[in-house]
Amino acid sequence: MRQNRMPVRIGWGDCDPAGIVFYPRYLAFFNEATGALFESVGYPKLLLIKTFGIVGYPMVEVSAQFLMPCTFGDDVVIETAIAEWGRTSFKLRHRIFKAEELCVEGYEKRVWAERDAQASSGIRSKVIPDEIKALLG
Amino acid sequence: MRQNRMPVRIGWGDCDPAGIVFYPRYLAFFNEATGALFESVGYPKLLLIKTFGIVGYPMVEVSAQFLMPCTFGDDVVIETAIAEWGRTSFKLRHRIFKAEELCVEGYEKRVWAERDAQASSGIRSKVIPDEIKALLG
Amino acid sequence: MRQNRMPVRIGWGDCDPAGIVFYPRYLAFFNEATGALFESVGYPKLLLIKTFGIVGYPMVEVSAQFLMPCTFGDDVVIETAIAEWGRTSFKLRHRIFKAEELCVEGYEKRVWAERDAQASSGIRSKVIPDEIKALLG
Amino acid sequence: MRQNRMPVRIGWGDCDPAGIVFYPRYLAFFNEATGALFESVGYPKLLLIKTFGIVGYPMVEVSAQFLMPCTFGDDVVIETAIAEWGRTSFKLRHRIFKAEELCVEGYEKRVWAERDAQASSGIRSKVIPDEIKALLG
Repeated sequence: MRQNRMPVRIGWGDCDPAGIVFYPRYLAFFNEATGALFESVGYPKLLLIKTFGIVGYPMVEVSAQFLMPCTFGDDVVIETAIAEWGRTSFKLRHRIFKAEELCVEGYEKRVWAERDAQASSGIRSKVIPDEIKALLG
Repeated sequence: MRQNRMPVRIGWGDCDPAGIVFYPRYLAFFNEATGALFESVGYPKLLLIKTFGIVGYPMVEVSAQFLMPCTFGDDVVIETAIAEWGRTSFKLRHRIFKAEELCVEGYEKRVWAERDAQASSGIRSKVIPDEIKALLG
Repeated sequence: MRQNRMPVRIGWGDCDPAGIVFYPRYLAFFNEATGALFESVGYPKLLLIKTFGIVGYPMVEVSAQFLMPCTFGDDVVIETAIAEWGRTSFKLRHRIFKAEELCVEGYEKRVWAERDAQASSGIRSKVIPDEIKALLG
Repeated sequence: MRQNRMPVRIGWGDCDPAGIVFYPRYLAFFNEATGALFESVGYPKLLLIKTFGIVGYPMVEVSAQFLMPCTFGDDVVIETAIAEWGRTSFKLRHRIFKAEELCVEGYEKRVWAERDAQASSGIRSKVIPDEIKALLG
């Protein structure tokens, strides 16, 4: 199973008046980390979209546990890997570490999706290509 | 059980290149909606902090399901209520509706916390006052 | 000259570790306030785009002075009006007040723009309709 | 005159429904770039605050010109340098380049500030140390 590590420096604007990361920012980091995982196997998002005729991999479920707060100036690393493959959806696990300490753990469930003008959401799910599954393990 | 309804107008800056809300923004809305629930029973956050000697109600877990995308200009309503009381923690449910349609459903687990200089996180949990439980149901 | 007043409640996530508004948030408020000015004369952004065949009114210059910090929980009002009309561009003035006190004053220069596949920026400026100038004064 | 170069990868969440960077994000980048300039001469923000007894360098004025839009996935570089020293305030220039092309140019005026419980803003300006001026040129 492929695992990607993405460094993040916690910025001033990521933190709230309690001096810790405003937690929606962690979710934004997750999103970048998901993109970085695909990029690490040769598919930056725009190329992924073009190559496989998808609109992207919209999120259907997210969850996170906050174990230890991160603060301004912290250098953290986000470890990202596939947690589970479905036929048209997949689950990712993200773990944010400060040095050796696990600070945040989260899961994203995403759908491999193409445009569908008929659907009320504008999209429909599509079978995930074997190439993608093989690359990410 | 008390339920609060907070209207939100989806802004341009809330949306991503797919034209839909960038999902971390929903989590930021949840946070405002939690504050609005407390305010609806007479305790805006700063007063809550002063009255009960807490640092706030930090998040320990969050989860959300995204059922239907919201887009720029949408007027949505966030319905918020307590889902469960613990001794020192509590769970909130948020549901975001566009007209009658449920678009996002999420849960937050938060801790009633006071400062603790000894703890590595800087805080420790505290028993939730009966007054608060009575007010929110 | 038409002036619109848009109320904003400063949220937790708008503020930084110094406990004051992280200033890029003021710029995001300006953007919403510009939209609110057009909406106040019957043209919410999507209708404006459709009616006049534009892609929007992209920003070309922005400036702001920060006179007094705003903090979490503040209820402020943003007063917005046209400061100057050009042929294809216009300038807006935004002033953010807390009660009677002026906290932030800013200017935006924007262009009335339509799509242009030939241009490297993808857009080109267009003459502002008299109807718009008459409505906003 | 010292100049710092900070690379930024434009993220999905930095962009708006027009597919281009939502401009308040550039201002947040400026803020990180200012911190990076100080860090490049040995003073990450927290050390700067501790060493010189300041609360930071709050912004009093900002301006920016948007010359060419940046989009999702762009790798840009922010060049930052002092533009002007005052006695208690200073001006920085930021320029954002995509390859050789100048996309955004902006200026920040900031104040070297210490806490002042008497002041309505909570802070007062302080003389900028010669060491800082010498380091940044």
